[in-house]
Amino acid sequence: MNETIGDRAAAMLAKAATISEPGPGVTRLPFTPEHAHANDLIAGWMQAAGLDTHRDAAGTLIGRREGATPDAPTFLLGSHQDSVRGGGAYDGIMGVLLPVLALEQLHDTPLPFAVEVLCFADEEGVRFPTALIGPRALAGTLDPAVLDMADRSGLRLGEALEGFGDPAAIGSIARAPGSVMGYLETHIEQGPVLEAEDLPVGIVTAIAGIERHAVTITGRAAHAGTAPMTLRKDALCAAAELVTGVERICGETENAVGTIGHLEVAPNVVNAVPAEVVATIELRSAEDVIRAEVASRVAEVARQATDRRGCALRMERTYQQPAKACAPELQDALEAAVAATGVRPLRLMSGATHDASAIADLCPMAMLFVRCREGVSHHPDEYAAPEDMGCAVGVLVNVLRGLAATDTQGAASRSS
Amino acid sequence: MNETIGDRAAAMLAKAATISEPGPGVTRLPFTPEHAHANDLIAGWMQAAGLDTHRDAAGTLIGRREGATPDAPTFLLGSHQDSVRGGGAYDGIMGVLLPVLALEQLHDTPLPFAVEVLCFADEEGVRFPTALIGPRALAGTLDPAVLDMADRSGLRLGEALEGFGDPAAIGSIARAPGSVMGYLETHIEQGPVLEAEDLPVGIVTAIAGIERHAVTITGRAAHAGTAPMTLRKDALCAAAELVTGVERICGETENAVGTIGHLEVAPNVVNAVPAEVVATIELRSAEDVIRAEVASRVAEVARQATDRRGCALRMERTYQQPAKACAPELQDALEAAVAATGVRPLRLMSGATHDASAIADLCPMAMLFVRCREGVSHHPDEYAAPEDMGCAVGVLVNVLRGLAATDTQGAASRSS
Repeated sequence: MNETIGDRAAAMLAKAATISEPGPGVTRLPFTPEHAHANDLIAGWMQAAGLDTHRDAAGTLIGRREGATPDAPTFLLGSHQDSVRGGGAYDGIMGVLLPVLALEQLHDTPLPFAVEVLCFADEEGVRFPTALIGPRALAGTLDPAVLDMADRSGLRLGEALEGFGDPAAIGSIARAPGSVMGYLETHIEQGPVLEAEDLPVGIVTAIAGIERHAVTITGRAAHAGTAPMTLRKDALCAAAELVTGVERICGETENAVGTIGHLEVAPNVVNAVPAEVVATIELRSAEDVIRAEVASRVAEVARQATDRRGCALRMERTYQQPAKACAPELQDALEAAVAATGVRPLRLMSGATHDASAIADLCPMAMLFVRCREGVSHHPDEYAAPEDMGCAVGVLVNVLRGLAATDTQGAASRSS
Repeated sequence: MNETIGDRAAAMLAKAATISEPGPGVTRLPFTPEHAHANDLIAGWMQAAGLDTHRDAAGTLIGRREGATPDAPTFLLGSHQDSVRGGGAYDGIMGVLLPVLALEQLHDTPLPFAVEVLCFADEEGVRFPTALIGPRALAGTLDPAVLDMADRSGLRLGEALEGFGDPAAIGSIARAPGSVMGYLETHIEQGPVLEAEDLPVGIVTAIAGIERHAVTITGRAAHAGTAPMTLRKDALCAAAELVTGVERICGETENAVGTIGHLEVAPNVVNAVPAEVVATIELRSAEDVIRAEVASRVAEVARQATDRRGCALRMERTYQQPAKACAPELQDALEAAVAATGVRPLRLMSGATHDASAIADLCPMAMLFVRCREGVSHHPDEYAAPEDMGCAVGVLVNVLRGLAATDTQGAASRSS
């Protein structure tokens, strides 16, 4: 039996996964010996696929093929090389290697535009209290102050970057907007939707915006035997109404999710009516207006649930990150490319944040999701099937071919 | 202004409250120097009220006045001397001192029956992993094995009892049922009902039965961004439906309370769908059949809440204690006695357990509750107003007079 493209992707990812700190799963942090080792391996694969490789000032490994003319715009593909601690073999790096395999297939196919595969250093933000250095540098949105942030050993990011990039030049690598056609990131879904829909790949509509609220509900401690139901101020009952309220509101709303993931009860003993609950509400949506509407309804439920029980409510938004929409024209290009492989095109939101969210400040961006077994990610059990990865490579090939045809037609119509 | 009976009660309780381990509030554990010191003080007050004092084999201080004849039955009053750690000045000991004041008032009033005021050693169960030694010994229900239980220092209960009672004789002090007319315990309410009803005292209908259930709800951990609402198994959402279910069911049911006081979420982080919740359900009711019905409805809510979300449910009853009804004839006697003081007689359940629950195995028992400020008990802020305690003394006087009249009529009718 011949080795398929998917099998090759699986073999490459398995090899890359061995480049890790000791311990279960993959632990590959940015600007470490493991990072350097992984870059060497990936650069070799890029070169074998006909790409010229270099690293930019932010430590991003770039494999490039030139366009038909020196001033041709560049189409970007890629993702990140780093992992969480004890993570999986797919998150990030699969989105670097599948484009390499796609460009290998297109080695002899002329494309009017240049193509770059970007291997970003740091998306997970595990080592330093920041992330997305590479894409932000390209988009010109990097705050140079992050270079002074230190890791647990006290080493500054700027120092760690030496040998990978050039901290002094990091402000100068922002791309001119017109020079870049777009960015397409391939990523394991990290969720259960494609598995539930029995689809190998899916087209991302947007990277969800996120907001978080810290909630404190204060009732009144009471003896669980002597306090009648009518004279209680039970903080947990109020919180419980809020929990099911978030579930109901988000369940009724398309493209939104909401979670109370953290909740603590005081005094938290079997025979005391709960006096206080602290909890966090996290809301995500592909559209900021939807998220705002959900947040408003959730706040109203919190008010009613606490008022009805005579409890006090403190609710404070502690974090907010706007949604980043995927470019409609790139979504359409992906839809045509997916359909051309015989797969039903499904569009879905990305609940997690990706490099693409930072690149969105530079150019149109899009994302292709690959099915994720049981939705498990950031864990040694993370898995994408070889055949699904093969399908994704086919989609990337189709997208690049489609963009080339459009670009050629565009050039033809411009010259006519 | 003359000192009222209530003022005297307050002064006596304040004095007794000084007999405590150091620290905030009152800490007076059984079979300690503080216990001995408190017994001396109380015995002096009993003697001043015309009572003969002695201690029984279980370490209960008893103040007794004889009846009209040597074989006259005995009516029991009293409560316990011990406190929780850092407790208040009223819980327990107020129910010893108010009867002493009532008997002082009745010093020159002939009563056909004997009266004893019992000052039990240990109701709170703070020092040893058992409680209610005194009333159980009187009722003949004491398991002698408890004498081998040790406190934190390793001292056995039997050893601690030496110098207060007689562990070897503890099995022999059970009263003959016909020798005891009944037991009436006066106690601070430890709840907010009388305050809400603006009443100084209330008549207890029953000491609630209790059951507890340990609940484990197992869902599935998921990323709070990537898991759509429809594909979640959120253990906290299921638990929240259970929490509000308990609140609703008990709110609809007379004479029942239910509480989820303890609840813990795993993994309990802001951006993860909760995978597991462990919680305890506590249900109390004045009637065991009502409690069983509530438990059955709660279990059904737990089943539905977990089934609907694809979560697994484990629910196990870990504790059960039957309700103890107050004797109807003593409730009626209390009602007449309360009404005679000009106070509206209100009947209410006792959600907490008391010495009376153990005495119920010996004779008819009843309880008189005294209003508790803000329902706060087991805390240095515990407070009953002097005028409310004065009212309670008046009720006790009326009850004893009423029982004497009934007894005399009974004797008259028996002799007619």
